[in-house]
Amino acid sequence: MEKKILIINGPNLNLLKYRDPLIYSHNEQTFQEYFNKLKKQYNKLEYYQSNHEGDLIDKIQEVEFDSLNYYGIVINAGGYTHTSITIRDAIEISHIPIIEVHISNIVNRENFRKESLLSPVCSGSIIGLGLDGYNLGIQAILNKY
Amino acid sequence: MEKKILIINGPNLNLLKYRDPLIYSHNEQTFQEYFNKLKKQYNKLEYYQSNHEGDLIDKIQEVEFDSLNYYGIVINAGGYTHTSITIRDAIEISHIPIIEVHISNIVNRENFRKESLLSPVCSGSIIGLGLDGYNLGIQAILNKY
Amino acid sequence: MEKKILIINGPNLNLLKYRDPLIYSHNEQTFQEYFNKLKKQYNKLEYYQSNHEGDLIDKIQEVEFDSLNYYGIVINAGGYTHTSITIRDAIEISHIPIIEVHISNIVNRENFRKESLLSPVCSGSIIGLGLDGYNLGIQAILNKY
Amino acid sequence: MEKKILIINGPNLNLLKYRDPLIYSHNEQTFQEYFNKLKKQYNKLEYYQSNHEGDLIDKIQEVEFDSLNYYGIVINAGGYTHTSITIRDAIEISHIPIIEVHISNIVNRENFRKESLLSPVCSGSIIGLGLDGYNLGIQAILNKY
Amino acid sequence: MEKKILIINGPNLNLLKYRDPLIYSHNEQTFQEYFNKLKKQYNKLEYYQSNHEGDLIDKIQEVEFDSLNYYGIVINAGGYTHTSITIRDAIEISHIPIIEVHISNIVNRENFRKESLLSPVCSGSIIGLGLDGYNLGIQAILNKY
Amino acid sequence: MEKKILIINGPNLNLLKYRDPLIYSHNEQTFQEYFNKLKKQYNKLEYYQSNHEGDLIDKIQEVEFDSLNYYGIVINAGGYTHTSITIRDAIEISHIPIIEVHISNIVNRENFRKESLLSPVCSGSIIGLGLDGYNLGIQAILNKY
Amino acid sequence: MEKKILIINGPNLNLLKYRDPLIYSHNEQTFQEYFNKLKKQYNKLEYYQSNHEGDLIDKIQEVEFDSLNYYGIVINAGGYTHTSITIRDAIEISHIPIIEVHISNIVNRENFRKESLLSPVCSGSIIGLGLDGYNLGIQAILNKY
Amino acid sequence: MEKKILIINGPNLNLLKYRDPLIYSHNEQTFQEYFNKLKKQYNKLEYYQSNHEGDLIDKIQEVEFDSLNYYGIVINAGGYTHTSITIRDAIEISHIPIIEVHISNIVNRENFRKESLLSPVCSGSIIGLGLDGYNLGIQAILNKY
Amino acid sequence: MEKKILIINGPNLNLLKYRDPLIYSHNEQTFQEYFNKLKKQYNKLEYYQSNHEGDLIDKIQEVEFDSLNYYGIVINAGGYTHTSITIRDAIEISHIPIIEVHISNIVNRENFRKESLLSPVCSGSIIGLGLDGYNLGIQAILNKY
Amino acid sequence: MEKKILIINGPNLNLLKYRDPLIYSHNEQTFQEYFNKLKKQYNKLEYYQSNHEGDLIDKIQEVEFDSLNYYGIVINAGGYTHTSITIRDAIEISHIPIIEVHISNIVNRENFRKESLLSPVCSGSIIGLGLDGYNLGIQAILNKY
Amino acid sequence: MEKKILIINGPNLNLLKYRDPLIYSHNEQTFQEYFNKLKKQYNKLEYYQSNHEGDLIDKIQEVEFDSLNYYGIVINAGGYTHTSITIRDAIEISHIPIIEVHISNIVNRENFRKESLLSPVCSGSIIGLGLDGYNLGIQAILNKY
Amino acid sequence: MEKKILIINGPNLNLLKYRDPLIYSHNEQTFQEYFNKLKKQYNKLEYYQSNHEGDLIDKIQEVEFDSLNYYGIVINAGGYTHTSITIRDAIEISHIPIIEVHISNIVNRENFRKESLLSPVCSGSIIGLGLDGYNLGIQAILNKY
Repeated sequence: MEKKILIINGPNLNLLKYRDPLIYSHNEQTFQEYFNKLKKQYNKLEYYQSNHEGDLIDKIQEVEFDSLNYYGIVINAGGYTHTSITIRDAIEISHIPIIEVHISNIVNRENFRKESLLSPVCSGSIIGLGLDGYNLGIQAILNKY
Repeated sequence: MEKKILIINGPNLNLLKYRDPLIYSHNEQTFQEYFNKLKKQYNKLEYYQSNHEGDLIDKIQEVEFDSLNYYGIVINAGGYTHTSITIRDAIEISHIPIIEVHISNIVNRENFRKESLLSPVCSGSIIGLGLDGYNLGIQAILNKY
Repeated sequence: MEKKILIINGPNLNLLKYRDPLIYSHNEQTFQEYFNKLKKQYNKLEYYQSNHEGDLIDKIQEVEFDSLNYYGIVINAGGYTHTSITIRDAIEISHIPIIEVHISNIVNRENFRKESLLSPVCSGSIIGLGLDGYNLGIQAILNKY
Repeated sequence: MEKKILIINGPNLNLLKYRDPLIYSHNEQTFQEYFNKLKKQYNKLEYYQSNHEGDLIDKIQEVEFDSLNYYGIVINAGGYTHTSITIRDAIEISHIPIIEVHISNIVNRENFRKESLLSPVCSGSIIGLGLDGYNLGIQAILNKY
Repeated sequence: MEKKILIINGPNLNLLKYRDPLIYSHNEQTFQEYFNKLKKQYNKLEYYQSNHEGDLIDKIQEVEFDSLNYYGIVINAGGYTHTSITIRDAIEISHIPIIEVHISNIVNRENFRKESLLSPVCSGSIIGLGLDGYNLGIQAILNKY
Repeated sequence: MEKKILIINGPNLNLLKYRDPLIYSHNEQTFQEYFNKLKKQYNKLEYYQSNHEGDLIDKIQEVEFDSLNYYGIVINAGGYTHTSITIRDAIEISHIPIIEVHISNIVNRENFRKESLLSPVCSGSIIGLGLDGYNLGIQAILNKY
Repeated sequence: MEKKILIINGPNLNLLKYRDPLIYSHNEQTFQEYFNKLKKQYNKLEYYQSNHEGDLIDKIQEVEFDSLNYYGIVINAGGYTHTSITIRDAIEISHIPIIEVHISNIVNRENFRKESLLSPVCSGSIIGLGLDGYNLGIQAILNKY
Repeated sequence: MEKKILIINGPNLNLLKYRDPLIYSHNEQTFQEYFNKLKKQYNKLEYYQSNHEGDLIDKIQEVEFDSLNYYGIVINAGGYTHTSITIRDAIEISHIPIIEVHISNIVNRENFRKESLLSPVCSGSIIGLGLDGYNLGIQAILNKY
Repeated sequence: MEKKILIINGPNLNLLKYRDPLIYSHNEQTFQEYFNKLKKQYNKLEYYQSNHEGDLIDKIQEVEFDSLNYYGIVINAGGYTHTSITIRDAIEISHIPIIEVHISNIVNRENFRKESLLSPVCSGSIIGLGLDGYNLGIQAILNKY
Repeated sequence: MEKKILIINGPNLNLLKYRDPLIYSHNEQTFQEYFNKLKKQYNKLEYYQSNHEGDLIDKIQEVEFDSLNYYGIVINAGGYTHTSITIRDAIEISHIPIIEVHISNIVNRENFRKESLLSPVCSGSIIGLGLDGYNLGIQAILNKY
Repeated sequence: MEKKILIINGPNLNLLKYRDPLIYSHNEQTFQEYFNKLKKQYNKLEYYQSNHEGDLIDKIQEVEFDSLNYYGIVINAGGYTHTSITIRDAIEISHIPIIEVHISNIVNRENFRKESLLSPVCSGSIIGLGLDGYNLGIQAILNKY
Repeated sequence: MEKKILIINGPNLNLLKYRDPLIYSHNEQTFQEYFNKLKKQYNKLEYYQSNHEGDLIDKIQEVEFDSLNYYGIVINAGGYTHTSITIRDAIEISHIPIIEVHISNIVNRENFRKESLLSPVCSGSIIGLGLDGYNLGIQAILNKY
């Protein structure tokens, strides 16, 4: 693995272990601990988290400008998944594979979490498989090369 | 009152006195003047305002990390009330009482202001009672202790 | 306090302590006990309860005819909140402040309890703050004078 | 005119002159004054008003049992017009002409006043013509004989 | 009666006696015969029928330009009642009373006949009372003077 | 059978034999005659009918207070089935079995009769089986003991 | 074939060969050329085209008055198919077979072209079979005799 | 009982005791055990179960062809209840009484289980009364003879 | 005619003569009798009927594999028309003309029969023309060669 | 400017100065006066107004046939904007630029004026800028050359 | 890997290489070739395909009865994904991990393919990643042990 | 031109030339190049772009505070156009003309781009006219002075 892969986490995903254990069942470890393990497996893995919609767009554009150095992005946009046309636009403009991940089974939760605005413009989606989804997402990107 | 209470105002609420007097009837005073009076009554009262959705999430998380020092939050998320799943998530993760306040009777206005995404995760809601709503919100928090 | 304030409770609210404790968490005391405490604080406080839609309208009209002797009404119309155009009409005709109170967070329950037909014609709404909502409602009325 | 005609007014129509003058423009006279004039024109005219849904059903059934002595009913069911399946059932069972009257143009008001549950089972509807509608309703009944 | 009153019938109402007798029960007489009777009662009564939406607008505008000579219009716009924003606009611009008449009880028929675009801009509506509705409509106009 | 069973009939069900024979096909006998037969089979059977929504609530509460003496209630709430949140609340609070009965197949009639607000809180529903449904409802209650 | 058959084309169908070739794939020939071929096969075939809704109604009524001389009508009402209650009424009143034809598969196009207001009152519909649909429509009419 | 009665169970109902005990509370016994008891009571009772939609239709048609030998069918079509127009058609064509049974209160579960396509064409429905519903269904059929 | 044409009938269409004569008016003959006549006209005509959704798919795939020997398929999928995405997929994959036929005017029946999932992927649709529709469908296929 | 530009005004726009001054604020001048001024600026400007939907289609087709002599069309279709699929079809077939203009901000008015059927097939839309919109529309057309 | 894993493919997935290449871009290989490669990687992998809804249920039940010998199921139910409550029920009853796979991005296709009835009861979903999704699904199952 | 005019571009509009050429057809030049040309025409023209919703609000408020020095704002809020109640509120509070511009015809794209939350509070909208729309927007503002 020579190029980089970026994991982007959206709002409130910095607080993973605080969230409802019925929904986020595998969260005894923080995302940080999980990322550290992943990092050993894929050493050019990067991580970015922000609660700001604009920050996520800025980041996706930044990777797009530097796209020769990236295999792709694994993104969990959290609550913005269902409301952000602007993140969708940023993904649609990009030319590298972007995989959408959701830790919990979003279709099983509130109605406003049923539709993902991002799915139609992502390369693919991995839903409800816990933190394992990030690892599968990386593999899906690598399988494309 | 030994712990702190935080009032959070969302976007455009810094311009209160500019807004439609038919809707915001009690606004001859700026929110600043109103807050100064409240501050005399509750001396450990804090105030935060931002037009940025991400800022409001950051602030709620900040209070959550420091939750031993807070009785609760009174929040008027303005226009984000009806669109922000991410602020909702931040509130849902929190463990202290959070009371939603709206100055005007939002159900009497445009359709897209009819539903509050925040109500279901707040401890309670106080609607349509003018600036007085903030004061009642603080009392409602204190009554919980 | 020289004029009177009336609390109106709608259908099934006479059985408060029987209701689902998950939803009505503060109901270890009956409404009667709660009212007796309130009565000590506001000595000209009156109370009326009926399961009949027409009775509630009759009562609101009766107060309207005697409106010089009332500061206002705090009303919890129970299940009629979501179906009664006629109680709404009665409130809309009235000239004194009427505050709507809901003990539980109605937006968190069944779909048919999401919309209040009364909110648009009440002076304000206090929702999800338990029995404390009645007290805050009375204060909100008094703050108007 | 030998048989009787009954005018039924539903909830809050006893307070006609209190209602919004923009909507109920001809109401400088009370319904009582208007009825007295009508009474001179049709001497066997009767009048019934109640705020109770059940009372209106009882009354319609009572006329039905005594239907040999009635030409018909002119009914303005007020707010029940839009919610009462039970009044609709009572009208549907009846065998004499029942004409629905609305003083204001209900389709011009709130959304929940747009549909009348009673129209499909009444003989006809007269809408938005002020108090004059009752008189036209009586004529429409008499024209049927 | 010195000024004129115009009855406008919209599309297919020239074929009244052909229509479904279950719906149009009083149509044993043609509209022409009915109009001749009415004409004896109100001698300055005029009649206009067209199947063309634009013709109906042209006619309403023509009366508006000559409005000093008209008491008002009784209109049954037939199928255009439910689709024509343009006839609605023409009526809304007019300054004389315009009464909407429907022979059958439109709310009892197909779904697309449930809503009248014209009702909100007419002075009033008379529905389901057969051909008698035209006569009542003329009276309602005359009662306004 | 030592405890009592109560049959509650809602509005207009006192006029059963007047109703549309296409829909209520088994009604050549009045409900009274049917009840008299049932009474021979179950001697502690009681009957209550009212056109008033509030009366039905009062009755359900009354049985609830006296619930040691009742096996359960068989209720046909007529037109209130589809609109009454308040009767639903009264049933939900009760602790004895309550079985909902409808004589005709309500899903085959008008749209507004399709959904029963009571079904979700009743022990079970028996629909479209004519007067026989009451008898089956009683058996269903007895089978629970 | 002794009686006549009329083909009616609605708005813009005079411009068939200009229309989107992806949708109207068989249109290398103009409708005129196609009609000339049909005319050789059925010598009493007539053709009428207009862009005016009222003209189409007038024509259908004209055939109805002369119905002894017609086997039926094949109609493609173009854009009016989805909006014209008035053409629907004209068809419903007629007593001869009227077959609806659409050249393209309307259900595969814009949403507002999904529902035909005319289908429920036509004898039958032939959709998506290109110009051939007119010929099949004529046969379907003849098969009825 | 001389003729036969058939109980038809649809998909997954062969696994009754595996299903969610919160929803299917009386299932400690398998359906087989329950049927064996019923069989003692009604000796000409038959049972058929299949997971295939087409099989259920074939079976209903088979009984229809042999309808002289059957009193009726008690059917629980499981998940097909809400999606199968074809089973509905098969029932509608049949001439013997068919009673629909649901073990749990389907209106209390997922949204897509709220509407039964079969109810409008069945003789009646028995819902939410556990396995007891099958027995009541058989009685309802026998009461028809 | 050298290649074969297949007529596929879906569920319950084997029972054509049993169905509602108001809807299926030309069915005095069974489909078998009608097919025998057609067969004389088109000697390489085949027929297949099944109540099983999967069978219909298997059959369409079978023809697809043998498509050199078929001109096309005329299909009446009965109740599956409105629910079967899988039959739709099978049709969409096929390369020979497939014409959809419905005996009755499906848009005039229950709501759930209004939309055909198959129309958008069929070559064309022939609706409401009775058994004649099968013959017209065959001609439409032959006209394509 | 050598080729012509055509302004088309739809129904009721001949009565501009009569319309609601709150909505049409700049209308102290009639459209005629405004057009005369425009005419001085663009001397090959033409104007057409009709209340008839078919006339507007005829006119658009006429320009299409003569399209070598036109730069484009500026159209304000008035009330037909929201209902006319046929005008939409006529515009879609045309090959010259067609700009849609609305004097008032249509999204701020009644619900049925929210969606323009014409926008998707026009080159562009200019909304809410008063009579000035026509001038901007002409410039937008000229800028395309 | 000692226990077995089963891949289930639903209707039409046996014809993968025939399907729309724009949607199913990686299908140059047949599913059989792909499975053969997978089989080398996971030697206890099994495969089952059927066009019959009931077959898929039978198979899922069969695995459930033999669940000690299976790690889990990877299922692509094709068109049944969006309509089959019965397959959903079969999955919900099962106790082993079941992963849903879709080759194409279903949310990017027709509306009726937007919602998966199976997602809420599967362990997780992998969407839009081509045939690679089956491999990722197997890994997701193995990661659970 | 003495006062300033501000052009505000929202998220992703900094990447204009990357976007779908089918939708954004005139984008061979970057917005920067286009702006440089505009700047020569209007020398007091300013430009601001941000991907952050809060930044756009801050900027609009900043202009409002300095409104004596601005003629108006031309804003293209990109994806926020359809979701941002908060930008809407900021525009509604402002007192200078604000013109909304969209480069492409938004009503022709995804459903969620059909409604603009900003249109009702802007002075006007210019849609689908490419980059030229900014220039027309500036003229529309200047025409107001």
